[in-house]
Amino acid sequence: MKRNSSISEDVEVTFTPLVILELTKDIHQDTIKWLVQRIKEKKHLGGAHLSIRPLEGQVENSQVYVIGASWRRLLLAAESLGFVKEYQDGSMRAFTYQNKENYKYFSEDDNFLTTAERQYIIKRELENLRAINETSVPGHPQVKLYPGKSIIRRLQTSGLLIQLYPLHDPAELKKLSFLWYRRVKFAFQPLDEIQQYYGQNIALYFAFLEYFTFALFPMAVIGVPYYLFAWEDYDKYIVFATFNLLWSTIVLEVWKRWCAKLSYKWGTLIMKREFEEPRPGFHGKLGLNPATGRKEPTYPTYLRQLRIYLVSMPFVCISLYTCLFVMMIYFQMEEQAFAYNEEVQSIFSAALLFFPSVIYSVVIEIMNRIYRYAAEYLTSWENHRLESSYQNHLILKVLVFNFINCFASLFYIAFILQDMKLLRQNLAALLITSQIINQVVESLLPYWLQKRRNKIIKQKLRISTTEKELPLTDQVKLEGEMDTYLGTFDDYLELFQQFGYVSLFSCVYPLAAILAVLNNVAEVFSDALKMCRVFKRPFSEPAADIGVWLLAFETMGVISVMTNCALIGMSPPVKGLFQGNSIQLFLLVVGIEHILLAMKFILAFAISDIPSDIRNKVAKLEFESIEALKHKQIKEADESLAKEQQHDEMKRREKKGK
Amino acid sequence: MKRNSSISEDVEVTFTPLVILELTKDIHQDTIKWLVQRIKEKKHLGGAHLSIRPLEGQVENSQVYVIGASWRRLLLAAESLGFVKEYQDGSMRAFTYQNKENYKYFSEDDNFLTTAERQYIIKRELENLRAINETSVPGHPQVKLYPGKSIIRRLQTSGLLIQLYPLHDPAELKKLSFLWYRRVKFAFQPLDEIQQYYGQNIALYFAFLEYFTFALFPMAVIGVPYYLFAWEDYDKYIVFATFNLLWSTIVLEVWKRWCAKLSYKWGTLIMKREFEEPRPGFHGKLGLNPATGRKEPTYPTYLRQLRIYLVSMPFVCISLYTCLFVMMIYFQMEEQAFAYNEEVQSIFSAALLFFPSVIYSVVIEIMNRIYRYAAEYLTSWENHRLESSYQNHLILKVLVFNFINCFASLFYIAFILQDMKLLRQNLAALLITSQIINQVVESLLPYWLQKRRNKIIKQKLRISTTEKELPLTDQVKLEGEMDTYLGTFDDYLELFQQFGYVSLFSCVYPLAAILAVLNNVAEVFSDALKMCRVFKRPFSEPAADIGVWLLAFETMGVISVMTNCALIGMSPPVKGLFQGNSIQLFLLVVGIEHILLAMKFILAFAISDIPSDIRNKVAKLEFESIEALKHKQIKEADESLAKEQQHDEMKRREKKGK
Repeated sequence: MKRNSSISEDVEVTFTPLVILELTKDIHQDTIKWLVQRIKEKKHLGGAHLSIRPLEGQVENSQVYVIGASWRRLLLAAESLGFVKEYQDGSMRAFTYQNKENYKYFSEDDNFLTTAERQYIIKRELENLRAINETSVPGHPQVKLYPGKSIIRRLQTSGLLIQLYPLHDPAELKKLSFLWYRRVKFAFQPLDEIQQYYGQNIALYFAFLEYFTFALFPMAVIGVPYYLFAWEDYDKYIVFATFNLLWSTIVLEVWKRWCAKLSYKWGTLIMKREFEEPRPGFHGKLGLNPATGRKEPTYPTYLRQLRIYLVSMPFVCISLYTCLFVMMIYFQMEEQAFAYNEEVQSIFSAALLFFPSVIYSVVIEIMNRIYRYAAEYLTSWENHRLESSYQNHLILKVLVFNFINCFASLFYIAFILQDMKLLRQNLAALLITSQIINQVVESLLPYWLQKRRNKIIKQKLRISTTEKELPLTDQVKLEGEMDTYLGTFDDYLELFQQFGYVSLFSCVYPLAAILAVLNNVAEVFSDALKMCRVFKRPFSEPAADIGVWLLAFETMGVISVMTNCALIGMSPPVKGLFQGNSIQLFLLVVGIEHILLAMKFILAFAISDIPSDIRNKVAKLEFESIEALKHKQIKEADESLAKEQQHDEMKRREKKGK
Repeated sequence: MKRNSSISEDVEVTFTPLVILELTKDIHQDTIKWLVQRIKEKKHLGGAHLSIRPLEGQVENSQVYVIGASWRRLLLAAESLGFVKEYQDGSMRAFTYQNKENYKYFSEDDNFLTTAERQYIIKRELENLRAINETSVPGHPQVKLYPGKSIIRRLQTSGLLIQLYPLHDPAELKKLSFLWYRRVKFAFQPLDEIQQYYGQNIALYFAFLEYFTFALFPMAVIGVPYYLFAWEDYDKYIVFATFNLLWSTIVLEVWKRWCAKLSYKWGTLIMKREFEEPRPGFHGKLGLNPATGRKEPTYPTYLRQLRIYLVSMPFVCISLYTCLFVMMIYFQMEEQAFAYNEEVQSIFSAALLFFPSVIYSVVIEIMNRIYRYAAEYLTSWENHRLESSYQNHLILKVLVFNFINCFASLFYIAFILQDMKLLRQNLAALLITSQIINQVVESLLPYWLQKRRNKIIKQKLRISTTEKELPLTDQVKLEGEMDTYLGTFDDYLELFQQFGYVSLFSCVYPLAAILAVLNNVAEVFSDALKMCRVFKRPFSEPAADIGVWLLAFETMGVISVMTNCALIGMSPPVKGLFQGNSIQLFLLVVGIEHILLAMKFILAFAISDIPSDIRNKVAKLEFESIEALKHKQIKEADESLAKEQQHDEMKRREKKGK
């Protein structure tokens, strides 16, 4: 991805374009001059010390700049951001510039830092570019600044900065896409390469998707004979439910270990967390941050709490109520269709039997999407200071609604109507429709739209559509028009729903697991396509785990213990055993449920989240750093003691002399 | 506590005796010479760099040495052990020797480090004294050593070292005991002073005891009118049980916050954990530690697992079975006593009614104590590498047994017999007997024994029994004979049982809370007496929380939700409401229980464990250290860049020259 450019006044000879900065057309020349100067300025003078130059050629309605950085600058930033790299001895260590030759894959002219890492560095350095004495952006006095405010974030919120995005690397992308989805043979995903190209955050999603698909295999394998030989024999699902239960507990525990292994290899497990800055959308009266002492907006917690409890919470409750209301309508429709079929008995009326389920699952999807926008709006209006707290509140809102929306009808059928046949039918309808909708709406449709758009742009630019290396300006024009990838939220949500379908009631519909497996295999391909072809390249983000999603999956696991116990208790053979003595049956089911839940917690507690070899490696690193510190302290202490003793000695001699 | 001594060859003029090292009489002179030399040796030569001198005067059957350290040595060690002290600006910071003048209470001649801290430093430095090339202890070739083995631990396990203990500081102790238990007026405990004298570990126990006692107040206050006005009116306990439930959840959450506040003030919240060494009793084949690279004993994990699962687990199960067997005998006795009373109807037979309960609670106490020894033996035989893992396995064994032993009969009465009157009677008997036994066996008896022993020794030494400052030799002789304090285990266990009595069934016996309060007020005094008068001073131990005990209390809280829900469901008015429709009642009770448990978890998750002001302070510290590191890196980076650019420039000029 290196392009030679004319020798600038800097020492650098090569300039690799990494990140694109797109400003509005009508930005003042003073602003540009000031911004470019601040970006180029040395670090100790408050600059970002990066290279920036205008893009050759014109882009419609905007002024585009290309940002890069010298090789040394990137290495030094890698140290200060706490990047972790493999050392000569195979262990992972925080990178230090002074020691650079001792890292395993280091050489003067290669890709020791991946393009994703270099782009992340540039993003972080740009975000950390702060106003010093400026009270407003030069040339735009209405855009206020205060000392310590991130310049880039202010430009973003004021609309002067249209977008900031990293460039794709066509050669690497081609290699990756070949490894990932273009090969016909069945193989694991190239997780390391995905991590290198897209960062740990996205790679962990694909790792989880893959892991989850493999974890579903035993369920799928057991499900098929159930389907083939014992379809109407609901009694047998006791065995299946018990298996289900153990499965859902162990799968998540083993994932934690696998995740620790991956994030150790990728350097994020031992990477130090940085101090979290307020999110760009956060606004409020200017005050002092008690931790950093920097000026930043402050917003009283009680006001946020009021917004949450007086507006968001009622809204969520009303939405949940609407949800249940729609559900009741669905059941009425179902009844009517059934009555109609009884009356008419035609092929049409029989087909009509499936109609309410299909309608309902489409309505559910639509409601999910509408609620999602509302939830985003509300959570943003709650004005959370940190991105993480924003994300947690958003995920909580969306998850609660999604859970009710997707599963309430199934609960109703299973435990109020106690109609296992209807439950199976609904489960199948919900699972299949939601999977098809997801695949189409999330990947195929955008892919098709993007392909059309590309074609139009290419025709406009008069580029031949055959693949070859495009000139930079054309590449920027193409990528700038692509959609922005909005993060892994929807992808995880989809998996969460699937986990629910598989673990909550799958003993009733054993095919759920195999359908999920098939969907996930397709999902890998469509998601890969989406990442590589549809969206702008996203900035990579260091992540050591899948965060709050793990908690969501664990909660689903706990609920699945309850549903499965209840299903077992309701199964005919078990009911037959206790003939009429339903109190005793009830006691037994509740007792078993409590024991299973206790076992689940004990198991989660007993299985270590980090495999022992990784634990040893991390412990070794910690021990070494403590020892190094101690040796340094002992040396300093001995020196200072010797000095002070000499001093005392001299004093005593002086006294004696007197 | 300063005693002037003759000027030694060292520069120190004053020597404060801090720690006593007691060796066997028949230790070889070479050993003593070697040990003393190693203790005095400078740190970078592998010594401990402490002062040591023989105790003037003779002690029977042993050779006693007194250990101290110079003021500078202690300050330097405080830095390397990561002590945290209050800074000028009121924040807590890791102490550094170079910066010492900037700490708030620092002055050249005062107690900046408490005696407890100084003694802890000496203990740590002695334990860290490691064999260099020695293959055995000089003079005792049968006592083997290997490079890296802690010398003091080897001397302890070989029996050459009888004991190592810190000296009391009579003046401070007098001040502390006056503040603590000698005043008549009712007041909070002097927690800060306890922490200064005994360290954070013990101070946190007393803080928890005090907190818990205050937390019991609302329960006690509500309990009294129940006792006075509605004693036989079991129906009313629905309100009480509900209150109980909220109470047990909130109490533990608030404790975490209070604990964080204390441990921040005491410097342990932000103190860095040290690398954990194998416990002294750990044995096995000599191998390499994967983390430290040091030689240390290794013991295969599968062998330990075999011992746990094939021996310890069956033993625990058999013990639990015995427990339940004894319980059934008790119920038979109870029945017989009842029948006899029915038959005879005398005062004697009526008194006999209480006999089985009293016998049973005494038997329970005895069984608890026997099992305790067995559990300690077994856990030690399991050969755990770390003290923490040993403690966890021991606590788990003891807690499970204690729980069954104390509460099984109550569960049986409550849920099988459903006899609330008997439950109340038993609860009272168990609570009162266990409290009396504990107070007598744990504090009063040892106090009385110690007093007698002291008297005998003092007579032997011909010291008058009136209080005055004793000469060092006499003090050592007195304290050396005192019992060793075995840690806070039993004290926490007692509180754990009490928590069970109060939260599991107290709605049936509302006086439990007030009895617990009274007991705890007495406990504060008897424990204080025990700490100050009965036992040798224990070494202080840094601790930031009450560790695994919190988990035990939380588990008890979860169980109490279940028992209270069940009790409510079984209460006559509730049963009356559902007349006969027991399935519906059952569903409701189980439903409410699940909702309450879910709320408990959400509450525990929502209430932050650390108060926001402490969180801010910790965040500020972290931010500052990150910033300091960054500034250092930026400076270094700019310098190295400038240098390299100069180098490049020169090369270019050379080229041009050519």
